[in-house]
Amino acid sequence: MKALYFDGKLELREVPRPRPAAEEALIQIVLAGLCGTDREILKGYSKFRGILGHEFVGRVVECANKNWLGKRVVGEINVACGECEYCLWGLGRHCPRRTVVGIVNRDGVFAEYVALPIVNLHEVPPEIPDEEAVFVEPVAAAAEILEQMPFSHTRRTAVLGDGRLGLLVAQVLCDAGGEVTVIGKHAFKLEVARSLGLKVARAGEDNLSAASFTVVVEATGSPSGLAEALRLVEPRGTVVMKSTFRDLATFDTAKVVVDEITLLGSRCGNFSKALDLLRDGTVSVRPLISKTLPLEAGLEAFEYLNDPSCLKVLLSPLAPGGKAGPGK
Amino acid sequence: MKALYFDGKLELREVPRPRPAAEEALIQIVLAGLCGTDREILKGYSKFRGILGHEFVGRVVECANKNWLGKRVVGEINVACGECEYCLWGLGRHCPRRTVVGIVNRDGVFAEYVALPIVNLHEVPPEIPDEEAVFVEPVAAAAEILEQMPFSHTRRTAVLGDGRLGLLVAQVLCDAGGEVTVIGKHAFKLEVARSLGLKVARAGEDNLSAASFTVVVEATGSPSGLAEALRLVEPRGTVVMKSTFRDLATFDTAKVVVDEITLLGSRCGNFSKALDLLRDGTVSVRPLISKTLPLEAGLEAFEYLNDPSCLKVLLSPLAPGGKAGPGK
Repeated sequence: MKALYFDGKLELREVPRPRPAAEEALIQIVLAGLCGTDREILKGYSKFRGILGHEFVGRVVECANKNWLGKRVVGEINVACGECEYCLWGLGRHCPRRTVVGIVNRDGVFAEYVALPIVNLHEVPPEIPDEEAVFVEPVAAAAEILEQMPFSHTRRTAVLGDGRLGLLVAQVLCDAGGEVTVIGKHAFKLEVARSLGLKVARAGEDNLSAASFTVVVEATGSPSGLAEALRLVEPRGTVVMKSTFRDLATFDTAKVVVDEITLLGSRCGNFSKALDLLRDGTVSVRPLISKTLPLEAGLEAFEYLNDPSCLKVLLSPLAPGGKAGPGK
Repeated sequence: MKALYFDGKLELREVPRPRPAAEEALIQIVLAGLCGTDREILKGYSKFRGILGHEFVGRVVECANKNWLGKRVVGEINVACGECEYCLWGLGRHCPRRTVVGIVNRDGVFAEYVALPIVNLHEVPPEIPDEEAVFVEPVAAAAEILEQMPFSHTRRTAVLGDGRLGLLVAQVLCDAGGEVTVIGKHAFKLEVARSLGLKVARAGEDNLSAASFTVVVEATGSPSGLAEALRLVEPRGTVVMKSTFRDLATFDTAKVVVDEITLLGSRCGNFSKALDLLRDGTVSVRPLISKTLPLEAGLEAFEYLNDPSCLKVLLSPLAPGGKAGPGK
């Protein structure tokens, strides 16, 4: 099968189709999404080698459990051991022995097929089309914030970063009752945010006073975002850290101590909750799709990620020469 | 009066005795304590200029409100406006217009006298001798952690740093039910910790596994402490940041995000609570007193802070030529 393989250099390769283990399913990828983490991996983040990609929607084409055959599915990206302390607490996302699809020691979804444990799968309700279901992983990551901190008492919230993740986080927090402002650098992306009903501010241009937000979500994808988040947050406030990048960040810890700021790291979230948010239209994702390209144009898709007007790029292994069946 | 004055260089100076304003008291300093923050100020932290020092016990010698005259007191170090949003919430410690004794725009206590608002004063109960009362500010800072996070569910706690603050924090958290290990570099200080009934480990020598503590309190006073705290804390755990220093710290934010760590800045605390902890003997402070020197030996006291066996150094303006009365 074709796959976007990274071993220090990203290239389209012909690789063997994965063979699902006993408790796994073989999934034919219908759509996959590019994420900031994928780009960071190209820079060295997580030292990953293998097939990239972790956001997808697909169809089960092979599975020992016949109930799953033909099902349209999305898949949780953390593959846990199921036996350790974390797994027994239901925190498999933090299992120290886990692999992570397309990020840590497990091939990803920028390919025609992927093999995943069936415990990781969620069937996609028919009301959610493929173009929306492919967003379930980042929507879950956005909604994770609500599982980590109480949000009802929150007054002023800033989402720093007008990219893919920022616009999802802002919608989720807005729905949870926050007074949310998206702060970004890109006129086009802020316009998309505005069209989603979000309040926006232009970074560096609008008058954003220091200590003017109770909660600041750092979703810029850049090490410099943290300093600005710390500037914007008020004493006793919270900075939610969503960006993963390779470089170390430098910051003024005295500010954190003196103002008694909470920095809250936040990563993957609950897929069931995300499917609900997509089904009921709380989170609108279609305006975020900038381009859908065939898998063969994967390198071009990564190039396009650098375009200032780019939000989400999707890859379709089925297009254009597509129609890859299980027997291909 | 004599005072330890810092204006880029620390020196003993003769300065005018402060004149208390209408709502203030003039306090004769009996004992004052040196703290890591004082040393950081000498390196440039907070850009402070004036009389150093913020830990003290003293006696009221002048006050419009006669009820305070002659009272033995300690004083909260944040002098708030009393009118802003924070002050009205009872969070004067975060008032943006505040001055801070010996740290921000207000003369400190390494002097014969200090003037402070009477709202900042707490009378010291007779059961607490001066040598213990002078610890109320750092004990309050240690106890602040309990006001910021639930501690009952905490399983394994590390206090990183075997210095003055670390040994106070460890005692407070131990009393709150934590299974606390003090991790330090100094055999002598770890011996003091052991004599206080605390479990200890030698940094770098004892086998301290990664991700082995639910809570890690960073009290090393050094920018490098944060990286080790992040190494020791388990996924979904909390790193409490207690150190203030001038330098920026560099750290791996991806670790915070991926492991969903909470970093919690923690500073000043409640004096009433601290007086209770000292009165009922929960926190033992006498073993932490390394030396008591006259105010005139202030420079020597700061030198001595660099001694690896030094814990708390106290300054006494009354000794040895002492007996400074209000009319001196």
